[in-house]
Amino acid sequence: MRKIFVIGIGAGDPEFLTGQAIAAMRATDVFFMPDKGAERGGLNRVRLEFLKRFVPEGGYRLVDFTIPSRRKADTPDYQESVADWRGELEAAYTTLFADEIGDGEVGAFLVWGDPALYDGTLGILGDMQARGLVSDFEVIPGISAVQALAARHKVALNGVGEPVVVTTGRRVLGGEADGIQRFVVMLDNEMAFRRFAGQRMKIYWGAYLGTADEILIAGSLSKVLGEIVQARTDAKKRFGWIMDTYLMVRET
Amino acid sequence: MRKIFVIGIGAGDPEFLTGQAIAAMRATDVFFMPDKGAERGGLNRVRLEFLKRFVPEGGYRLVDFTIPSRRKADTPDYQESVADWRGELEAAYTTLFADEIGDGEVGAFLVWGDPALYDGTLGILGDMQARGLVSDFEVIPGISAVQALAARHKVALNGVGEPVVVTTGRRVLGGEADGIQRFVVMLDNEMAFRRFAGQRMKIYWGAYLGTADEILIAGSLSKVLGEIVQARTDAKKRFGWIMDTYLMVRET
Repeated sequence: MRKIFVIGIGAGDPEFLTGQAIAAMRATDVFFMPDKGAERGGLNRVRLEFLKRFVPEGGYRLVDFTIPSRRKADTPDYQESVADWRGELEAAYTTLFADEIGDGEVGAFLVWGDPALYDGTLGILGDMQARGLVSDFEVIPGISAVQALAARHKVALNGVGEPVVVTTGRRVLGGEADGIQRFVVMLDNEMAFRRFAGQRMKIYWGAYLGTADEILIAGSLSKVLGEIVQARTDAKKRFGWIMDTYLMVRET
Repeated sequence: MRKIFVIGIGAGDPEFLTGQAIAAMRATDVFFMPDKGAERGGLNRVRLEFLKRFVPEGGYRLVDFTIPSRRKADTPDYQESVADWRGELEAAYTTLFADEIGDGEVGAFLVWGDPALYDGTLGILGDMQARGLVSDFEVIPGISAVQALAARHKVALNGVGEPVVVTTGRRVLGGEADGIQRFVVMLDNEMAFRRFAGQRMKIYWGAYLGTADEILIAGSLSKVLGEIVQARTDAKKRFGWIMDTYLMVRET
Protein backbone atom coordinates (compact mmCIF):
# COMPACT_ATOMS: atom_id res chain seq x y z
CA MET A 1 0.00 0.00 0.00
CA ARG A 2 3.05 2.18 0.42
CA LYS A 3 5.42 2.49 -2.47
CA ILE A 4 9.07 3.53 -2.31
CA PHE A 5 11.12 4.98 -5.14
CA VAL A 6 14.90 4.81 -5.01
CA ILE A 7 15.76 7.56 -7.46
CA GLY A 8 19.25 7.96 -8.88
CA ILE A 9 19.61 11.72 -9.32
CA GLY A 10 22.99 11.57 -11.06
CA ALA A 11 26.25 13.21 -10.11
CA GLY A 12 25.34 16.81 -9.43
CA ASP A 13 24.42 18.26 -12.82
CA PRO A 14 20.65 18.76 -13.18
CA GLU A 15 21.10 17.94 -16.87
CA PHE A 16 22.12 14.40 -15.80
CA LEU A 17 18.60 13.62 -14.61
CA THR A 18 16.69 11.15 -16.75
CA GLY A 19 13.08 11.46 -17.81
CA GLN A 20 12.34 8.49 -15.57
CA ALA A 21 13.89 10.18 -12.52
CA ILE A 22 11.95 13.38 -13.11
CA ALA A 23 8.67 11.46 -13.55
CA ALA A 24 9.32 9.57 -10.29
CA MET A 25 10.10 12.80 -8.42
CA ARG A 26 6.83 14.26 -9.67
CA ALA A 27 4.93 11.19 -8.46
CA THR A 28 6.40 11.31 -4.95
CA ASP A 29 4.57 12.49 -1.84
CA VAL A 30 7.38 12.29 0.72
CA PHE A 31 11.11 12.74 0.17
CA PHE A 32 13.46 11.39 2.81
CA MET A 33 16.42 13.70 3.33
CA PRO A 34 19.44 12.06 4.96
CA ASP A 35 21.21 14.00 7.63
CA LYS A 36 24.92 13.24 7.77
CA GLY A 37 28.32 14.70 6.75
CA ALA A 38 28.45 15.45 3.05
CA GLU A 39 24.68 15.07 2.75
CA ARG A 40 24.01 17.90 5.15
CA GLY A 41 26.98 19.86 3.86
CA GLY A 42 26.17 20.16 0.22
CA LEU A 43 24.23 17.27 -1.23
CA ASN A 44 20.89 18.17 0.36
CA ARG A 45 21.22 21.67 -1.06
CA VAL A 46 21.52 20.12 -4.52
CA ARG A 47 18.55 17.79 -3.84
CA LEU A 48 16.41 20.79 -2.91
CA GLU A 49 17.50 22.67 -6.05
CA PHE A 50 16.52 19.68 -8.18
CA LEU A 51 13.10 19.51 -6.51
CA LYS A 52 12.52 23.23 -7.12
CA ARG A 53 13.54 22.82 -10.73
CA PHE A 54 11.73 19.62 -11.65
CA VAL A 55 8.70 19.81 -9.33
CA PRO A 56 8.15 23.58 -9.34
CA GLU A 57 4.52 23.28 -8.25
CA GLY A 58 5.56 21.60 -4.97
CA GLY A 59 2.94 19.45 -3.25
CA TYR A 60 5.46 17.13 -1.61
CA ARG A 61 6.70 16.82 1.96
CA LEU A 62 10.31 16.69 3.11
CA VAL A 63 11.24 14.44 6.03
CA ASP A 64 14.69 14.59 7.54
CA PHE A 65 16.04 11.38 8.93
CA THR A 66 19.16 10.74 10.92
CA ILE A 67 21.42 8.03 9.61
CA PRO A 68 22.91 6.10 12.56
CA SER A 69 26.61 6.91 12.65
CA ARG A 70 28.75 4.14 11.24
CA ARG A 71 31.54 2.85 13.40
CA LYS A 72 35.03 3.89 12.41
CA ALA A 73 36.76 1.99 9.63
CA ASP A 74 39.48 0.78 11.98
CA THR A 75 37.22 -1.43 14.07
CA PRO A 76 38.42 -5.03 14.30
CA ASP A 77 35.75 -6.38 11.96
CA TYR A 78 34.68 -3.91 9.30
CA GLN A 79 32.08 -6.22 7.70
CA GLU A 80 30.43 -6.85 11.05
CA SER A 81 30.43 -3.16 11.86
CA VAL A 82 28.67 -2.47 8.55
CA ALA A 83 26.13 -5.23 9.27
CA ASP A 84 25.31 -3.69 12.67
CA TRP A 85 24.96 -0.31 11.06
CA ARG A 86 22.62 -1.71 8.41
CA GLY A 87 20.46 -3.27 11.11
CA GLU A 88 20.09 0.09 12.85
CA LEU A 89 19.31 1.75 9.54
CA GLU A 90 16.66 -0.84 8.79
CA ALA A 91 14.95 -0.19 12.11
CA ALA A 92 15.09 3.53 11.41
CA TYR A 93 13.54 3.02 7.95
CA THR A 94 10.74 0.86 9.32
CA THR A 95 9.69 3.58 11.74
CA LEU A 96 10.12 6.24 9.10
CA PHE A 97 7.89 4.50 6.56
CA ALA A 98 5.19 3.71 9.12
CA ASP A 99 5.13 7.24 10.53
CA GLU A 100 5.62 9.33 7.43
CA ILE A 101 4.10 7.63 4.37
CA GLY A 102 0.32 7.71 4.38
CA ASP A 103 -1.82 4.94 2.93
CA GLY A 104 -1.53 4.90 -0.88
CA GLU A 105 1.30 7.44 -0.77
CA VAL A 106 4.73 7.25 -2.35
CA GLY A 107 7.99 7.87 -0.51
CA ALA A 108 11.36 8.40 -2.19
CA PHE A 109 15.07 8.52 -1.58
CA LEU A 110 17.05 10.81 -3.86
CA VAL A 111 20.29 8.89 -4.20
CA TRP A 112 23.41 10.67 -5.43
CA GLY A 113 24.72 9.09 -8.64
CA ASP A 114 23.35 5.59 -9.21
CA PRO A 115 21.63 3.57 -6.45
CA ALA A 116 23.42 0.37 -7.58
CA LEU A 117 26.90 1.77 -6.95
CA TYR A 118 28.20 2.12 -3.38
CA ASP A 119 24.90 3.05 -1.82
CA GLY A 120 23.30 0.91 0.87
CA THR A 121 19.65 1.74 0.16
CA LEU A 122 18.96 -1.16 -2.26
CA GLY A 123 20.46 -3.73 0.08
CA ILE A 124 18.44 -2.49 3.03
CA LEU A 125 15.14 -2.30 1.12
CA GLY A 126 15.79 -5.74 -0.41
CA ASP A 127 16.25 -7.25 3.06
CA MET A 128 13.16 -5.44 4.30
CA GLN A 129 11.10 -6.68 1.36
CA ALA A 130 12.25 -10.27 1.96
CA ARG A 131 10.87 -9.94 5.51
CA GLY A 132 7.61 -8.28 4.48
CA LEU A 133 8.52 -4.83 5.83
CA VAL A 134 8.32 -3.14 2.44
CA SER A 135 5.74 -4.22 -0.10
CA ASP A 136 6.86 -2.42 -3.20
CA PHE A 137 9.91 -0.50 -4.30
CA GLU A 138 11.23 0.64 -7.64
CA VAL A 139 14.78 1.58 -8.62
CA ILE A 140 15.64 4.34 -11.07
CA PRO A 141 19.22 4.35 -12.35
CA GLY A 142 21.21 7.58 -12.48
CA ILE A 143 24.45 8.86 -14.01
CA SER A 144 27.17 7.98 -11.49
CA ALA A 145 30.21 10.09 -10.62
CA VAL A 146 32.32 7.46 -12.41
CA GLN A 147 30.45 8.10 -15.65
CA ALA A 148 30.61 11.87 -15.17
CA LEU A 149 34.36 11.55 -14.62
CA ALA A 150 34.84 9.54 -17.83
CA ALA A 151 32.66 11.91 -19.85
CA ARG A 152 34.40 15.05 -18.59
CA HIS A 153 37.84 13.58 -19.28
CA LYS A 154 36.57 12.01 -22.56
CA VAL A 155 38.14 8.69 -21.67
CA ALA A 156 36.80 5.12 -21.65
CA LEU A 157 36.58 3.20 -18.38
CA ASN A 158 37.87 0.01 -20.00
CA GLY A 159 40.94 -0.71 -22.06
CA VAL A 160 40.22 -2.57 -25.31
CA GLY A 161 38.84 -5.99 -24.36
CA GLU A 162 39.83 -5.38 -20.71
CA PRO A 163 37.62 -5.39 -17.60
CA VAL A 164 36.32 -2.37 -15.74
CA VAL A 165 37.23 -2.33 -12.07
CA VAL A 166 35.74 0.16 -9.63
CA THR A 167 37.11 -0.13 -6.14
CA THR A 168 37.49 1.79 -2.90
CA GLY A 169 40.32 3.80 -1.39
CA ARG A 170 40.46 1.31 1.45
CA ARG A 171 41.07 -1.61 -0.90
CA VAL A 172 43.66 0.27 -2.94
CA LEU A 173 45.56 1.00 0.29
CA GLY A 174 45.37 -2.74 0.99
CA GLY A 175 47.22 -3.41 -2.27
CA GLU A 176 44.30 -4.72 -4.30
CA ALA A 177 44.97 -2.55 -7.36
CA ASP A 178 48.75 -3.00 -7.40
CA GLY A 179 48.61 -5.42 -10.33
CA ILE A 180 45.69 -3.88 -12.19
CA GLN A 181 46.11 -2.03 -15.48
CA ARG A 182 43.17 0.33 -15.22
CA PHE A 183 40.85 1.01 -12.30
CA VAL A 184 38.51 3.59 -10.83
CA VAL A 185 38.67 4.57 -7.16
CA MET A 186 35.70 5.81 -5.15
CA LEU A 187 35.17 6.50 -1.45
CA ASP A 188 38.79 7.49 -0.98
CA ASN A 189 39.43 9.86 1.90
CA GLU A 190 43.07 8.90 2.17
CA MET A 191 44.30 9.93 -1.31
CA ALA A 192 45.29 6.34 -1.99
CA PHE A 193 46.69 7.37 -5.39
CA ARG A 194 49.83 8.44 -3.53
CA ARG A 195 50.60 4.74 -3.17
CA PHE A 196 51.59 4.76 -6.86
CA ALA A 197 53.95 7.76 -6.67
CA GLY A 198 56.97 7.08 -8.85
CA GLN A 199 55.16 4.54 -11.05
CA ARG A 200 54.34 5.18 -14.69
CA MET A 201 50.62 5.84 -14.47
CA LYS A 202 48.12 8.33 -15.75
CA ILE A 203 45.45 9.69 -13.43
CA TYR A 204 42.12 11.28 -14.38
CA TRP A 205 40.81 12.96 -11.25
CA GLY A 206 37.60 14.85 -10.58
CA ALA A 207 35.90 16.41 -7.55
CA TYR A 208 32.38 17.82 -7.12
CA LEU A 209 31.70 16.35 -10.56
CA GLY A 210 28.72 17.81 -12.37
CA THR A 211 28.41 20.78 -10.01
CA ALA A 212 29.49 24.40 -10.49
CA ASP A 213 32.46 23.66 -8.22
CA GLU A 214 33.76 20.80 -10.40
CA ILE A 215 37.54 20.38 -10.44
CA LEU A 216 39.27 18.25 -13.11
CA ILE A 217 42.94 17.33 -13.20
CA ALA A 218 44.54 14.75 -15.52
CA GLY A 219 48.04 13.76 -16.52
CA SER A 220 50.99 11.60 -15.63
CA LEU A 221 50.75 10.84 -11.92
CA SER A 222 54.33 12.04 -11.38
CA LYS A 223 53.45 15.45 -12.83
CA VAL A 224 50.04 16.09 -11.26
CA LEU A 225 50.20 14.27 -7.92
CA GLY A 226 51.17 17.38 -5.96
CA GLU A 227 48.59 19.48 -7.76
CA ILE A 228 45.80 17.02 -6.90
CA VAL A 229 46.82 16.79 -3.24
CA GLN A 230 46.83 20.60 -3.03
CA ALA A 231 43.53 21.03 -4.87
CA ARG A 232 41.82 18.37 -2.76
CA THR A 233 43.13 19.75 0.53
CA ASP A 234 42.18 23.33 -0.35
CA ALA A 235 38.70 22.36 -1.57
CA LYS A 236 37.93 20.26 1.47
CA LYS A 237 38.92 23.15 3.71
CA ARG A 238 36.87 25.63 1.72
CA PHE A 239 33.64 23.60 1.35
CA GLY A 240 33.87 21.51 4.52
CA TRP A 241 33.32 18.28 2.53
CA ILE A 242 34.54 16.70 -0.67
CA MET A 243 33.43 13.99 -3.07
CA ASP A 244 36.03 12.92 -5.59
CA THR A 245 36.82 9.94 -7.79
CA TYR A 246 39.54 9.01 -10.23
CA LEU A 247 40.58 6.64 -12.97
CA MET A 248 44.14 5.31 -13.00
CA VAL A 249 45.75 3.82 -16.10
CA ARG A 250 49.09 2.05 -15.94
CA GLU A 251 51.31 3.12 -18.85
CA THR A 252 52.84 0.25 -20.75
CA MET B 1 35.07 24.43 -36.68
CA ARG B 2 33.29 21.10 -36.67
CA LYS B 3 31.99 19.79 -33.40
CA ILE B 4 31.23 16.19 -32.52
CA PHE B 5 28.91 14.98 -29.79
CA VAL B 6 29.24 11.45 -28.46
CA ILE B 7 25.81 11.02 -26.93
CA GLY B 8 25.02 8.18 -24.54
CA ILE B 9 21.39 7.36 -25.27
CA GLY B 10 21.03 4.83 -22.48
CA ALA B 11 19.96 1.21 -22.61
CA GLY B 12 16.84 1.26 -24.75
CA ASP B 13 14.19 2.97 -22.63
CA PRO B 14 13.46 6.51 -23.88
CA GLU B 15 12.89 7.44 -20.23
CA PHE B 16 16.60 6.73 -19.61
CA LEU B 17 17.64 9.75 -21.68
CA THR B 18 19.09 12.63 -19.70
CA GLY B 19 18.29 16.29 -20.24
CA GLN B 20 21.85 16.73 -21.47
CA ALA B 21 21.46 13.99 -24.09
CA ILE B 22 18.20 15.45 -25.37
CA ALA B 23 19.70 18.97 -25.58
CA ALA B 24 22.68 17.61 -27.53
CA MET B 25 20.40 15.72 -29.92
CA ARG B 26 18.46 18.92 -30.54
CA ALA B 27 21.70 20.81 -31.28
CA THR B 28 22.94 18.24 -33.82
CA ASP B 29 22.92 18.73 -37.59
CA VAL B 30 24.16 15.30 -38.69
CA PHE B 31 23.67 11.94 -37.00
CA PHE B 32 25.99 9.11 -37.97
CA MET B 33 24.14 5.81 -38.09
CA PRO B 34 26.34 2.74 -37.82
CA ASP B 35 25.60 -0.13 -40.14
CA LYS B 36 26.48 -3.49 -38.63
CA GLY B 37 24.90 -6.55 -36.96
CA ALA B 38 22.82 -5.56 -33.96
CA GLU B 39 22.94 -1.90 -34.96
CA ARG B 40 21.17 -2.57 -38.23
CA GLY B 41 18.98 -5.24 -36.66
CA GLY B 42 17.31 -3.30 -33.91
CA LEU B 43 19.41 -0.53 -32.42
CA ASN B 44 19.02 1.89 -35.35
CA ARG B 45 15.26 1.47 -35.17
CA VAL B 46 15.44 2.61 -31.52
CA ARG B 47 17.75 5.52 -32.45
CA LEU B 48 15.23 6.70 -35.04
CA GLU B 49 12.37 6.41 -32.53
CA PHE B 50 14.34 8.54 -30.04
CA LEU B 51 14.98 11.18 -32.71
CA LYS B 52 11.29 11.31 -33.62
CA ARG B 53 10.36 11.62 -29.99
CA PHE B 54 12.93 14.14 -28.80
CA VAL B 55 13.52 16.17 -31.98
CA PRO B 56 9.99 16.06 -33.44
CA GLU B 57 10.54 19.10 -35.63
CA GLY B 58 13.36 17.33 -37.53
CA GLY B 59 15.90 19.54 -39.27
CA TYR B 60 18.75 17.04 -38.99
CA ARG B 61 20.39 14.76 -41.53
CA LEU B 62 21.06 11.04 -41.15
CA VAL B 63 24.25 9.60 -42.59
CA ASP B 64 24.79 5.85 -42.67
CA PHE B 65 28.34 4.67 -42.30
CA THR B 66 29.77 1.23 -42.65
CA ILE B 67 31.88 0.00 -39.77
CA PRO B 68 34.80 -2.03 -41.12
CA SER B 69 34.18 -5.62 -40.10
CA ARG B 70 36.31 -6.68 -37.16
CA ARG B 71 38.34 -9.80 -37.57
CA LYS B 72 37.12 -12.85 -35.71
CA ALA B 73 37.95 -13.19 -32.04
CA ASP B 74 40.01 -16.33 -32.69
CA THR B 75 42.78 -14.56 -34.63
CA PRO B 76 46.24 -15.18 -33.17
CA ASP B 77 46.56 -11.70 -31.69
CA TYR B 78 43.25 -10.23 -30.62
CA GLN B 79 44.73 -6.91 -29.43
CA GLU B 80 46.48 -6.39 -32.75
CA SER B 81 43.37 -7.26 -34.68
CA VAL B 82 41.46 -4.63 -32.68
CA ALA B 83 44.21 -2.06 -33.35
CA ASP B 84 44.00 -2.68 -37.12
CA TRP B 85 40.27 -2.37 -36.96
CA ARG B 86 40.53 0.91 -35.08
CA GLY B 87 42.89 2.28 -37.72
CA GLU B 88 40.39 1.49 -40.45
CA LEU B 89 37.60 3.04 -38.42
CA GLU B 90 39.66 6.19 -37.89
CA ALA B 91 40.22 6.57 -41.62
CA ALA B 92 36.50 6.04 -42.21
CA TYR B 93 35.65 8.71 -39.61
CA THR B 94 38.06 11.22 -41.11
CA THR B 95 36.40 10.94 -44.51
CA LEU B 96 32.96 10.97 -42.94
CA PHE B 97 33.56 14.17 -40.98
CA ALA B 98 35.16 15.97 -43.94
CA ASP B 99 32.40 15.00 -46.35
CA GLU B 100 29.34 15.20 -44.18
CA ILE B 101 29.73 17.90 -41.52
CA GLY B 102 29.52 21.41 -42.94
CA ASP B 103 31.49 24.30 -41.56
CA GLY B 104 30.12 25.34 -38.17
CA GLU B 105 27.90 22.26 -38.03
CA VAL B 106 27.61 19.62 -35.34
CA GLY B 107 27.84 15.87 -35.93
CA ALA B 108 26.83 13.21 -33.42
CA PHE B 109 27.07 9.53 -32.61
CA LEU B 110 24.17 8.08 -30.67
CA VAL B 111 25.94 5.51 -28.52
CA TRP B 112 23.92 2.72 -26.90
CA GLY B 113 24.27 2.82 -23.11
CA ASP B 114 27.25 4.87 -21.95
CA PRO B 115 30.09 5.87 -24.31
CA ALA B 116 32.69 5.14 -21.60
CA LEU B 117 31.76 1.46 -21.33
CA TYR B 118 32.80 -1.00 -24.07
CA ASP B 119 32.40 1.39 -26.96
CA GLY B 120 35.34 2.35 -29.16
CA THR B 121 34.18 5.84 -30.17
CA LEU B 122 35.93 7.75 -27.36
CA GLY B 123 39.26 6.03 -27.98
CA ILE B 124 39.12 6.72 -31.70
CA LEU B 125 38.11 10.38 -31.32
CA GLY B 126 40.77 10.88 -28.62
CA ASP B 127 43.47 9.54 -30.94
CA MET B 128 42.15 11.70 -33.77
CA GLN B 129 42.12 14.79 -31.57
CA ALA B 130 45.71 14.15 -30.49
CA ARG B 131 46.69 14.18 -34.16
CA GLY B 132 44.65 17.28 -35.05
CA LEU B 133 41.99 15.39 -37.02
CA VAL B 134 39.15 16.43 -34.71
CA SER B 135 39.11 19.84 -33.11
CA ASP B 136 36.34 19.54 -30.60
CA PHE B 137 34.26 16.74 -29.16
CA GLU B 138 32.01 16.42 -26.16
CA VAL B 139 30.90 13.30 -24.29
CA ILE B 140 27.46 12.85 -22.77
CA PRO B 141 27.10 9.95 -20.34
CA GLY B 142 24.13 7.60 -20.55
CA ILE B 143 22.49 4.89 -18.48
CA SER B 144 24.33 1.68 -19.36
CA ALA B 145 22.80 -1.77 -19.69
CA VAL B 146 24.64 -2.69 -16.48
CA GLN B 147 22.78 0.00 -14.58
CA ALA B 148 19.47 -0.94 -16.20
CA LEU B 149 20.11 -4.55 -15.16
CA ALA B 150 20.80 -3.60 -11.54
CA ALA B 151 17.78 -1.30 -11.38
CA ARG B 152 15.38 -3.87 -12.86
CA HIS B 153 16.60 -6.58 -10.50
CA LYS B 154 16.81 -4.06 -7.61
CA VAL B 155 20.27 -5.24 -6.69
CA ALA B 156 23.55 -3.41 -6.01
CA LEU B 157 26.53 -3.98 -8.31
CA ASN B 158 28.95 -4.10 -5.37
CA GLY B 159 28.96 -6.15 -2.21
CA VAL B 160 29.47 -4.10 0.99
CA GLY B 161 32.94 -2.56 0.78
CA GLU B 162 33.75 -4.78 -2.23
CA PRO B 163 34.84 -3.77 -5.74
CA VAL B 164 32.67 -3.68 -8.85
CA VAL B 165 34.02 -5.77 -11.71
CA VAL B 166 32.57 -5.58 -15.21
CA THR B 167 34.17 -7.99 -17.62
CA THR B 168 33.58 -9.72 -20.94
CA GLY B 169 32.37 -13.18 -21.88
CA ARG B 170 35.76 -13.85 -23.45
CA ARG B 171 37.61 -13.14 -20.22
CA VAL B 172 35.20 -15.18 -18.12
CA LEU B 173 35.78 -18.15 -20.44
CA GLY B 174 39.50 -17.59 -19.88
CA GLY B 175 39.00 -18.11 -16.14
CA GLU B 176 39.34 -14.48 -15.02
CA ALA B 177 36.23 -14.47 -12.86
CA ASP B 178 36.75 -17.88 -11.26
CA GLY B 179 37.92 -16.36 -7.98
CA ILE B 180 35.70 -13.30 -7.95
CA GLN B 181 32.78 -12.92 -5.58
CA ARG B 182 30.58 -10.66 -7.67
CA PHE B 183 30.95 -9.59 -11.27
CA VAL B 184 29.03 -8.33 -14.27
CA VAL B 185 29.48 -9.87 -17.72
CA MET B 186 28.97 -7.98 -20.97
CA LEU B 187 29.67 -8.84 -24.62
CA ASP B 188 29.04 -12.50 -24.03
CA ASN B 189 27.93 -14.46 -27.07
CA GLU B 190 29.06 -17.76 -25.62
CA MET B 191 26.86 -17.92 -22.50
CA ALA B 192 29.97 -18.02 -20.35
CA PHE B 193 27.80 -18.36 -17.22
CA ARG B 194 27.61 -22.08 -18.03
CA ARG B 195 31.19 -22.29 -16.80
CA PHE B 196 29.84 -21.98 -13.25
CA ALA B 197 27.22 -24.73 -13.55
CA GLY B 198 27.13 -26.70 -10.30
CA GLN B 199 28.63 -23.88 -8.22
CA ARG B 200 26.66 -22.00 -5.57
CA MET B 201 26.02 -18.74 -7.37
CA LYS B 202 23.14 -16.39 -8.02
CA ILE B 203 22.65 -14.93 -11.47
CA TYR B 204 20.69 -11.80 -12.41
CA TRP B 205 20.26 -11.89 -16.17
CA GLY B 206 18.64 -9.44 -18.58
CA ALA B 207 18.24 -9.12 -22.34
CA TYR B 208 16.97 -6.22 -24.49
CA LEU B 209 17.03 -4.22 -21.27
CA GLY B 210 14.94 -1.08 -21.28
CA THR B 211 13.02 -2.08 -24.42
CA ALA B 212 9.52 -3.52 -24.81
CA ASP B 213 11.16 -6.91 -25.43
CA GLU B 214 13.05 -6.92 -22.12
CA ILE B 215 13.54 -10.36 -20.54
CA LEU B 216 14.60 -10.72 -16.89
CA ILE B 217 15.55 -13.94 -15.14
CA ALA B 218 17.14 -14.22 -11.69
CA GLY B 219 17.81 -16.97 -9.20
CA SER B 220 20.25 -19.65 -8.15
CA LEU B 221 22.31 -20.53 -11.20
CA SER B 222 21.50 -24.23 -10.75
CA LYS B 223 17.78 -23.51 -10.92
CA VAL B 224 17.64 -20.98 -13.77
CA LEU B 225 20.58 -21.92 -16.02
CA GLY B 226 18.46 -23.98 -18.39
CA GLU B 227 15.76 -21.34 -18.49
CA ILE B 228 18.26 -18.64 -19.45
CA VAL B 229 19.85 -20.77 -22.17
CA GLN B 230 16.40 -21.47 -23.61
CA ALA B 231 15.20 -17.87 -23.40
CA ARG B 232 18.38 -16.55 -24.96
CA THR B 233 18.36 -19.07 -27.80
CA ASP B 234 14.69 -18.48 -28.59
CA ALA B 235 15.01 -14.69 -28.49
CA LYS B 236 18.07 -14.63 -30.71
CA LYS B 237 16.24 -16.77 -33.24
CA ARG B 238 13.14 -14.61 -33.07
CA PHE B 239 14.77 -11.16 -33.30
CA GLY B 240 17.89 -12.08 -35.27
CA TRP B 241 20.12 -10.37 -32.67
CA ILE B 242 20.46 -10.19 -28.91
CA MET B 243 22.06 -7.91 -26.33
CA ASP B 244 22.22 -9.31 -22.84
CA THR B 245 24.19 -8.82 -19.65
CA TYR B 246 24.24 -10.39 -16.21
CA LEU B 247 25.48 -10.04 -12.66
CA MET B 248 26.84 -13.12 -10.89
CA VAL B 249 27.12 -13.34 -7.11
CA ARG B 250 28.92 -16.18 -5.42
CA GLU B 251 26.94 -17.47 -2.41
CA THR B 252 28.96 -17.80 0.76
